[in-house]
Amino acid sequence: MNKHPHQIRFGQALSSHRKKQGLSQEQLAFNSGLDRSYIGGVERGERNISLINMYKLADALQIKVADFFTDADND
Amino acid sequence: MNKHPHQIRFGQALSSHRKKQGLSQEQLAFNSGLDRSYIGGVERGERNISLINMYKLADALQIKVADFFTDADND
Repeated sequence: MNKHPHQIRFGQALSSHRKKQGLSQEQLAFNSGLDRSYIGGVERGERNISLINMYKLADALQIKVADFFTDADND
Repeated sequence: MNKHPHQIRFGQALSSHRKKQGLSQEQLAFNSGLDRSYIGGVERGERNISLINMYKLADALQIKVADFFTDADND
């Protein structure tokens, strides 16, 4: 499984935002319309997520897409 | 051709950052290692760009990936 460092950091940012809101992966999947196993893969850094799916997750978390990168880019 | 509003806004942000630096699509393609026609498609809002390609473009423009969204998300 190809785990690119950028994918790992995005996954960590997604997981952190989800947990801050006390959401399970199932709840985030329901709210975003994405599959729970896909979200798990993104959080584990296994997915090269696309722009549209980033917006689906940001909208479901009521954050901005930039917020995923603000954590990730400030390492 | 499917032109999702988020793709259009990302394309506008990419084009704006590229032009601010006086780069042609060819130069950005060379610097990012991506194909010029792919970059043209992203700028026209025709591509659902992935995370890794966002980083390639941001690195080539010496900006942060969040900078693509700061413009796009502030509409």
